[in-house]
Amino acid sequence: MSPPNFANALPELQALLGERLSLAQAVRDQHAAGEGLSPDLPPDAVAWPTDKAEVCALLKICHAHGVPAIAYGAGSSLEGHISAPRGGVTLDLSRMDAVLDVHADDADCVVQPGVTREALNAFLQDTGLFFPVDPGANATLGGMASTRASGTTTMRYGSMWHNVLAMEVALADGRLVRFGSRARKSSAGLDLVRLMIGAEGTLGVITELTLRLHPQPTEVAAASCAFPTLADAVNAVTEIVMSGVPCARVEFLDEHQVKACNAHSNLALPELPTLFLEFHGTAAGVNEQAEMAQGIAAEHGSVAFEWARRPEDRSRLWRARHMAYFAALALRPGCAHIVADVCVPISALADAVAQARADIDAEGLVATVLGHVGDGNFHVIFMPMPGDVAEQAAVDRVYAAMVARAHTAGGTCTGEHGIGMGKKAKLLDELGPDTVQLMRLIKNAWDPRGILNPEKIF
Amino acid sequence: MSPPNFANALPELQALLGERLSLAQAVRDQHAAGEGLSPDLPPDAVAWPTDKAEVCALLKICHAHGVPAIAYGAGSSLEGHISAPRGGVTLDLSRMDAVLDVHADDADCVVQPGVTREALNAFLQDTGLFFPVDPGANATLGGMASTRASGTTTMRYGSMWHNVLAMEVALADGRLVRFGSRARKSSAGLDLVRLMIGAEGTLGVITELTLRLHPQPTEVAAASCAFPTLADAVNAVTEIVMSGVPCARVEFLDEHQVKACNAHSNLALPELPTLFLEFHGTAAGVNEQAEMAQGIAAEHGSVAFEWARRPEDRSRLWRARHMAYFAALALRPGCAHIVADVCVPISALADAVAQARADIDAEGLVATVLGHVGDGNFHVIFMPMPGDVAEQAAVDRVYAAMVARAHTAGGTCTGEHGIGMGKKAKLLDELGPDTVQLMRLIKNAWDPRGILNPEKIF
Repeated sequence: MSPPNFANALPELQALLGERLSLAQAVRDQHAAGEGLSPDLPPDAVAWPTDKAEVCALLKICHAHGVPAIAYGAGSSLEGHISAPRGGVTLDLSRMDAVLDVHADDADCVVQPGVTREALNAFLQDTGLFFPVDPGANATLGGMASTRASGTTTMRYGSMWHNVLAMEVALADGRLVRFGSRARKSSAGLDLVRLMIGAEGTLGVITELTLRLHPQPTEVAAASCAFPTLADAVNAVTEIVMSGVPCARVEFLDEHQVKACNAHSNLALPELPTLFLEFHGTAAGVNEQAEMAQGIAAEHGSVAFEWARRPEDRSRLWRARHMAYFAALALRPGCAHIVADVCVPISALADAVAQARADIDAEGLVATVLGHVGDGNFHVIFMPMPGDVAEQAAVDRVYAAMVARAHTAGGTCTGEHGIGMGKKAKLLDELGPDTVQLMRLIKNAWDPRGILNPEKIF
Repeated sequence: MSPPNFANALPELQALLGERLSLAQAVRDQHAAGEGLSPDLPPDAVAWPTDKAEVCALLKICHAHGVPAIAYGAGSSLEGHISAPRGGVTLDLSRMDAVLDVHADDADCVVQPGVTREALNAFLQDTGLFFPVDPGANATLGGMASTRASGTTTMRYGSMWHNVLAMEVALADGRLVRFGSRARKSSAGLDLVRLMIGAEGTLGVITELTLRLHPQPTEVAAASCAFPTLADAVNAVTEIVMSGVPCARVEFLDEHQVKACNAHSNLALPELPTLFLEFHGTAAGVNEQAEMAQGIAAEHGSVAFEWARRPEDRSRLWRARHMAYFAALALRPGCAHIVADVCVPISALADAVAQARADIDAEGLVATVLGHVGDGNFHVIFMPMPGDVAEQAAVDRVYAAMVARAHTAGGTCTGEHGIGMGKKAKLLDELGPDTVQLMRLIKNAWDPRGILNPEKIF
């Protein structure tokens, strides 16, 4: 049964959206699932607004009736960001997918929130520019902004945090406001753009984004490089990073993940702890970076440094990396999955990764380790069997120990997946109740009726 | 006369701080002046806390009595950030000047807010690391964080916004909280670190900063390059930026500013629109960057491209740039000064600079134009004579037109100087009342008694 406030709002929502409002159980379930393990808590309805005016009108109705409103991009969240624990309306923004403007002379563009990163880069192909943030999934840019997405290229180009210049936001009560400007920097008051980046839809619904673009590199070189031990691989990364080599990407895969990728993506990589590296720049710059990285890798005992010189070889390598998650899941048919995500200062990375791997092995769990190690960020893909209480408990122990070690090392319980519903307790552990309360004060001030993506973060 | 709430707080403040609380008029005036033109509105007292516990205790007293508390770093603000329009206590943080920790393996450090950027870099000299943000003035790092400082190296290394990882903050009621972590990236809830960067002391007093450091470049090359016209110089910059050459610094000085620097810093530069450039990297990288930049400059008619190869030549060049403000003021002895600060998308930069210069000349004003043009950020140093009402009115007209053009071009009324008391009306013009009200809601939620640096920003 839907609560009465939704029932009261429904006629108004139907009058606004007609066929673009669905009450079908399958649609509601599909929009609550995400990629994570959190329970599927479906909304009362799913709406497909087609422009900002409709988003505002929809929020006005929800606000008047106290009905939750949950922004939805591509549904690739891992922490239950799109769950609807209090019901309400999910705003599927996938039809707001227009690239509104490209300012090639300024290397920026204006997009609607439902544009995916791959669609944007396809659109930009002939401009000499590209949008670098790459979380793996073909997420929407609105979702990526709302979750402060980063990914493989963050060490060179930054995360969403660095690459959003301005945005237009529909507030809880349906008013439309603008934050930021197209200037590359600004000291114009509180940084509300950055406040929205990572707010997970709790403060407003993004209706437009102005994004920073980057020149397509004239030269790209990629390589894979295997090491005898996990510690060798991670120590090589630490030294590459600290030497200032401006790598575009440095990804780590443990031997289990390499095995999974070989099987899933038809590769023949040595099944050892491995780095995937990429360098962007001029021909001379790329050569110099690559030589420095290769030299450091050799000092750490690298046993196979293979260049992916042709574009198709590079694509194969990165497609394999992007499919790592699905490749891992194929290791254990029928398994559930929990993707852990911690980020530590780089000096703590080798120990953090090694201890996580040791814990996994000690518990006898099926799991792979991989990560954006240039940033100190790594993941464990745990694959317990559904309903196996003992395995789930072991996963919880290993994950809790990973987070505790990250905190001890001065790191964070989430490098890029966010809090959602899944990490609220870990956030409290990390920052303490006073700091989380300061976040909640902002939420309450901007959304006093609490309709925007309730029960997330705080 | 001090208001009664200060009188009530005074015995408690004196008991806490003893000699480290001054009521002397000269001290109070000195702490209210800044470098800007805003009226000097002195506080009731100046305090020199020596540690975080004292900052908290002081804020508790101020909070209990409703007495304003104004954080003060080096007093180099240009927009009246340190004025005390409602009296209260200025917290001079210059005695909290310890570098608490350097994590060389992670390229980060922990400092108290009163450490100046030059002191930090002197401290770091032998570590192979440096802190890059360089606003010119030898400001304190707490002040730089609070005003979202940037400067000459921002295009390569980012502003304070990019280089603060974590902080400890004393809240209005004296509670101490921590934001952020030492991880290089995080999605752990709302980004309260970024909210504090540029909050100008209105949300809390920073008691500790964790800063990101960078490897000292193995090679540095600097050059000055003159152009026949202002448009040529700025167009060369635009092309250098858009070509992706990773310049460390690109500074513009118009012919009037070059003349001032020649006189003040004993240089012999051609008195033409000029760029100061700097490149950081490996020897090969720096050469390549420099060649690309020199080639682009030549295409735009550069008439003198002079390398400053020796460290002492480089130092002279950048000392001249850092002294540009004082050099300009020496052009007109006895003058007042207003430093305008706008930032525009790079494609709008050449017109924006040319039109500002044309307006200055049409009004017959004494003023120089200079800026961090790689970011689209430029300044006009206006030098009207004090009390000359007609000149002041002309300055106001020219500045208002600069801001209006910046807004039309999608830019901002302040690239780096902040809002303070001086730009509140311009901020409203830029973002609109709804957006500024959202900032105020945060302020009110965090500081309901309104004691932290009142009447700034909002």
